[in-house]
Amino acid sequence: MSTERLLADLAIIFIAAKLTGAVFERLRQPAVMGELLVGVILGPHALSAIGHTPTHEVLQELGAIILLFAVGLDTPLSELRAVGGRSLAVGTAGIVLPFAAGVGLVAATGHNAEESLLVGTAMVATSVGVTARVLADLGRVRAPESRVILGAAIADDILGLLVLAVVAGTVAHEISVGSIAGIAALAIGFVALVGGLGATAVKRALPFLDRLGETGVFTVALAVCLALSAVAGALDLAAIIGAFLAGMAFAETRDRYRLEERLSGVYSLLVPFFFVITGSLVDPGVFTSAGTAGLALAVIVVAIAGKLIGCGWAAAGMGRRSALIVGWGMVPRGEVGVLVASIGLERGIVNGDLYGVVVAMAVATTLVAPPVIGALFGGVPRHGHGPRGPEIEGIGG
Amino acid sequence: MSTERLLADLAIIFIAAKLTGAVFERLRQPAVMGELLVGVILGPHALSAIGHTPTHEVLQELGAIILLFAVGLDTPLSELRAVGGRSLAVGTAGIVLPFAAGVGLVAATGHNAEESLLVGTAMVATSVGVTARVLADLGRVRAPESRVILGAAIADDILGLLVLAVVAGTVAHEISVGSIAGIAALAIGFVALVGGLGATAVKRALPFLDRLGETGVFTVALAVCLALSAVAGALDLAAIIGAFLAGMAFAETRDRYRLEERLSGVYSLLVPFFFVITGSLVDPGVFTSAGTAGLALAVIVVAIAGKLIGCGWAAAGMGRRSALIVGWGMVPRGEVGVLVASIGLERGIVNGDLYGVVVAMAVATTLVAPPVIGALFGGVPRHGHGPRGPEIEGIGG
Repeated sequence: MSTERLLADLAIIFIAAKLTGAVFERLRQPAVMGELLVGVILGPHALSAIGHTPTHEVLQELGAIILLFAVGLDTPLSELRAVGGRSLAVGTAGIVLPFAAGVGLVAATGHNAEESLLVGTAMVATSVGVTARVLADLGRVRAPESRVILGAAIADDILGLLVLAVVAGTVAHEISVGSIAGIAALAIGFVALVGGLGATAVKRALPFLDRLGETGVFTVALAVCLALSAVAGALDLAAIIGAFLAGMAFAETRDRYRLEERLSGVYSLLVPFFFVITGSLVDPGVFTSAGTAGLALAVIVVAIAGKLIGCGWAAAGMGRRSALIVGWGMVPRGEVGVLVASIGLERGIVNGDLYGVVVAMAVATTLVAPPVIGALFGGVPRHGHGPRGPEIEGIGG
Repeated sequence: MSTERLLADLAIIFIAAKLTGAVFERLRQPAVMGELLVGVILGPHALSAIGHTPTHEVLQELGAIILLFAVGLDTPLSELRAVGGRSLAVGTAGIVLPFAAGVGLVAATGHNAEESLLVGTAMVATSVGVTARVLADLGRVRAPESRVILGAAIADDILGLLVLAVVAGTVAHEISVGSIAGIAALAIGFVALVGGLGATAVKRALPFLDRLGETGVFTVALAVCLALSAVAGALDLAAIIGAFLAGMAFAETRDRYRLEERLSGVYSLLVPFFFVITGSLVDPGVFTSAGTAGLALAVIVVAIAGKLIGCGWAAAGMGRRSALIVGWGMVPRGEVGVLVASIGLERGIVNGDLYGVVVAMAVATTLVAPPVIGALFGGVPRHGHGPRGPEIEGIGG
């Protein structure tokens, strides 16, 4: 694909995302749903108005990085600590149940162990990106339920990574107890170290940062965000974990340097690429075979029920409505499920049909959750354009 | 190249650009020189710390688009009209002389007609991106010389495109008088139409834009920028011409919606990719053969002298110092020369040696001009970080 064609794709993605986002806001639905749906419609499996190349993947990833950086900026460590125990419980319960139910379901429909394990793994990791965007659209990033969800999604990503490493390793017959322990130690160490020390390091650097001025601090924050994303990616953690931790490190100095205001333009430009391109990976043709469609439906139901029951149970102490919000907040698998499926396809673990099932599951869970979360929170606070809520002033569709 | 590796490249490019940019500012040199040099050093031909893929090309292009959009935002049509005639004269003179001298030089050193024509074409088009950034770094975008340079660079791009079309067509024996006229009409029509009517259209849309609020208008402006860039690219004009025209259309409403302030974050993130990646295309190994090195040196001298004499002569009416600034402002060929060379290499018109010569010319002219322009303007106004000049408040390295 030529540079000119890629540029045309970017223009189409951006403009379609903003138009459908505006329409969905008028319908009092989170704008992200419109962006995902327009991606499905324009994607290479439907209208083919946009393609899919490594460049699309990098822009998708960059969009997710900026999104999680913005969410991290809005998540001071002190507030996250208050919900830490509950988040870990929610994350763990939300992994065990969907994994076990998913593996059981796929194995029961005549697939072999490797296929069953891979589909189960794809059902594990919550797409924190989708939920974070919905919470941002609703202006609820700082609600207690949102804190639990975001904390659980981090735990979830780390634990999900371990499951993927173990399953991929088991399938390849290369895994040892030592390497599993090594991967786990690396992931937990990275998050604990960066998450625990980041904010302190930024606080220590205040005299230096004050000398740089607002523009300079914004540059440093972006550099830290890109660097930690790259490091997380290199450690086989998701890059967005690094971006989230970078945002958290600067969360306490956010207002001092007007970081969110400066980030708003970047957010508005890049984040839609994540959602439209994630949507564009869907092949609507997966439902033409009755067998595949039936399996997809069953997997979708199990994927939703698994998170709702597992996470909702773990969050039951917060009250029924909050537990439901947490449960639904953990439902979307989005790009993480798709990523696992594509690894499986690449390595020949699953065929095109099972791949289609996993992608359908990822998209269905992603599409179904936002309106439910919105309804549980009482709807989008205001419609129309402009900033959504006080805590994300300037960061919006 | 995996997404993880590409992300690591982005982090390396951004951080290296900002660090060297800061060092160059301390040395009272335009930051862009540091970004170009660090690109040469880190590029695939030297340290190989960063690669070169279609994704790099798109990010390079996106950086150029945002840069030219920002420059356009700072170029109200009314001010450009005042220097229109002189710009056209400068652009034309700056094409005729380098092209004729370049073709003559290469033909005189024993190369065939096709090779000579291609090298001559690569010496034609000024890299408005480099000069625009230098002028922005110096806080001189609104100086009369800058207006002439930017206007001439647009004329230059259009005329250069015609030369490229004719030479490429001649080489392929496919060109007709009709197709040349068609290409010319398209290019001139696009610029006249969009440039002439853009600002009026935006002014008419003010009641609608006012309802959207600042965030909404910024989104619309970005959408117009991406759309016009894609259209310009599809018309085989450079995409950056569309970005520049989009900026110009919003120039009169810039302050009403604080567009530059909102753009500053995007500018700070994306523009360095253009300069570092452009620098990374240089192969320093080109100078190991004495014959190639000698030819490169001769081509560089002719490339500089051609623009200086041609453009300086056309701008002589502005006074000696201003004419020198205009001449030097038109010297950098940067990515445009490299682009022409790569087309020549792709189509088998030039070999690797001549390709190296053209790239060396493009980079040498790009590296040599900024400090001279800075000195002629009296140096960088302030060093250190933060906004550079009142007219680019918030848009800076």
